[in-house]
Amino acid sequence: MAILEKKIYVGLTEETAIQLVKELAFFPIHAELTAKEIGDGNLNYVFRITDQEGGKSLIIKQALPYAKVVGESWPLTLKRSKIEADALIKHGEFVPLLVPKVYETDEDLAITIMEDLSHLKIARTGLIEGENYPKLARDIGEYIAKTLFYTSDFALHPFEKKRLVAAFSNPELCKITEDLVFTDPFFDIDTNDFEPELQSDVEAIWGNTALQIEAAKIKYSFLTEAEALLHGDLHTGSIFASEEETKVIDPEFAFYGPIGFDLGLFIANLVFQSIVRDGEQKEYILNQIEETWQVFYSVFSELWEKEGVDPFTKVSGYKESFLQKIFNDAVAFTGCELIRRTIGLSHVKDLDGIEDKEIRLAAKRKTLELGTSLILRKSDIQEIKGFISAIKEHTA
Amino acid sequence: MAILEKKIYVGLTEETAIQLVKELAFFPIHAELTAKEIGDGNLNYVFRITDQEGGKSLIIKQALPYAKVVGESWPLTLKRSKIEADALIKHGEFVPLLVPKVYETDEDLAITIMEDLSHLKIARTGLIEGENYPKLARDIGEYIAKTLFYTSDFALHPFEKKRLVAAFSNPELCKITEDLVFTDPFFDIDTNDFEPELQSDVEAIWGNTALQIEAAKIKYSFLTEAEALLHGDLHTGSIFASEEETKVIDPEFAFYGPIGFDLGLFIANLVFQSIVRDGEQKEYILNQIEETWQVFYSVFSELWEKEGVDPFTKVSGYKESFLQKIFNDAVAFTGCELIRRTIGLSHVKDLDGIEDKEIRLAAKRKTLELGTSLILRKSDIQEIKGFISAIKEHTA
Repeated sequence: MAILEKKIYVGLTEETAIQLVKELAFFPIHAELTAKEIGDGNLNYVFRITDQEGGKSLIIKQALPYAKVVGESWPLTLKRSKIEADALIKHGEFVPLLVPKVYETDEDLAITIMEDLSHLKIARTGLIEGENYPKLARDIGEYIAKTLFYTSDFALHPFEKKRLVAAFSNPELCKITEDLVFTDPFFDIDTNDFEPELQSDVEAIWGNTALQIEAAKIKYSFLTEAEALLHGDLHTGSIFASEEETKVIDPEFAFYGPIGFDLGLFIANLVFQSIVRDGEQKEYILNQIEETWQVFYSVFSELWEKEGVDPFTKVSGYKESFLQKIFNDAVAFTGCELIRRTIGLSHVKDLDGIEDKEIRLAAKRKTLELGTSLILRKSDIQEIKGFISAIKEHTA
Repeated sequence: MAILEKKIYVGLTEETAIQLVKELAFFPIHAELTAKEIGDGNLNYVFRITDQEGGKSLIIKQALPYAKVVGESWPLTLKRSKIEADALIKHGEFVPLLVPKVYETDEDLAITIMEDLSHLKIARTGLIEGENYPKLARDIGEYIAKTLFYTSDFALHPFEKKRLVAAFSNPELCKITEDLVFTDPFFDIDTNDFEPELQSDVEAIWGNTALQIEAAKIKYSFLTEAEALLHGDLHTGSIFASEEETKVIDPEFAFYGPIGFDLGLFIANLVFQSIVRDGEQKEYILNQIEETWQVFYSVFSELWEKEGVDPFTKVSGYKESFLQKIFNDAVAFTGCELIRRTIGLSHVKDLDGIEDKEIRLAAKRKTLELGTSLILRKSDIQEIKGFISAIKEHTA
């Protein structure tokens, strides 16, 4: 029986994945197809299907009904597959060259069939290997500006905006972020995961009431501020890159949230590289951070001026005031991501991959110090030069 | 044929209203019922059904598929009837004595059958007639604190909160507020309605860029900050009162929005009374404003401390910081309501009912001056005494 007609969820195998794309007639009828599961198997299956002769290939991504994190298995909504596909399609309206093309989706099977990007490398992996991506900052600045401006109240009719807010309600995946990014690292909670040598550094965070108050405020903005349709998990592991191309993938955490969050997450994940690199290579990364903000600012500004639909977008000075708020939010979100990736449940290879223990611990201490400072100084740091100075100061 | 079985919308008459409550067996089978339409017919029918012998009575409220405002007829979603009934029921979980009891609802007919409160008077009417309601401020402070705390992220599991956000998505009625309260009064737009003598005062508002920027920010918080399930239209015309009782009605504008909005709307509508009254009577109203805030603050504080579910509610100092944000928001929302009721589409009888033209124009100028000041000084006014001083200063 045809897989799509069953209308019930069943995990694909390499065999049934091939059967599926044949049913959908993506390849010539007698094509010799091969399938390979290339995902990490924690949250999703990712099958790469290739026509050996024609050379054509595509990706089937299928959500698994659970998440495996450090050995534990959590049930997890399959609805995230629909959210991810819908977000790729919606964002693709505004930045068609910066996201994979979606060919087909099926809600019952929780699958998205999309463009194969295997010729590109995950940006985090490449950066750790010392590669540089000259277009990365520019492309991500543009991606954030366009996807977020066009899904905001500044661009949409209020009915359409509220329709999207409801359609992208994503409680289960938001809760992962609410807990792991914004809550657990600031308290002595079991999910935290850090090297024992950091115990006193971590206790300093748990005992820092001023920091907790600021973390509470920025968590609250994540909970309540439905500004735009975020990617929701825009770290360097969600980006495919080469010297010529940038493609943002995996928006399963997409929801209507604060604009500064996508910015802060991306910037924080560049900060990890600025910490592990030296000299010119460190400067290169710092310049990428600055460029990300500058491009975001100028693209968002231009869209605001040319396409803003709210009468207040014509009021002189409002745009600058609004972008200042976004900047300050981004500073604090950067701080939260730095801390949680160091002592929370889910780490980054940029830091954990440093083999020398003393160097690794020193890097992590810098991350915690910088993260703390950014959260506390959210409103003091007024512009990107000051932000870069703060990063340099705490990571020298 | 039974009315409820038709499953299509049909406007009730006094006759079919009686038939309906008979079908629903609200009264003894041979009861002699009378029906009277007591609404203003702009947005809804309101039928009072009375059993002449038993003395029992109830209200059927039916939404009309249009709104009549200054002679024009706008199509308007019937879904607001469901939102209103659902909000009455949800808020009734937390303040059962401060809202009417809902007996029955029907989405097809857009009706809510509820407690008859005809023994009470609309607070605005009573206040204009010089009555005082000693429990009003306390009850409304408690109503706002409880309905908003219990529907916020501080009290709810995040899944339930996000479910409610989607269920109470209310785009059409929100747009009325977005336009009439937060946009039109700040620009030269046709819907505005003001006495010609105020032309230069109004032009001063339209030309005040600093004011427009602050209005833009507070409008944006209304558009994006899903803090709690608001009443959404909490003026003194939405409150039934006596010396012993307070009942909040008409939450058809309910949606997830910023907590300060309900506070600001109610306070602004007391401010109109503080402007039209003198001496001790003015002081009485100013005391009611202060009491509203104090009661809100203490009830919300106690709930936060005893029933806060977010770990950050246990962090010393966060509560104060949060309530400061709510206070500052309320100051600015008060300012917006003062301005829009004076020069926007929908006025209040407190001001328009002043017969002496010079006195009326002077009152309106005070309202505009105070409204402007509150919006501009949103962040400067730090506590309720300063708020009361600002009101006194501009309305002496």
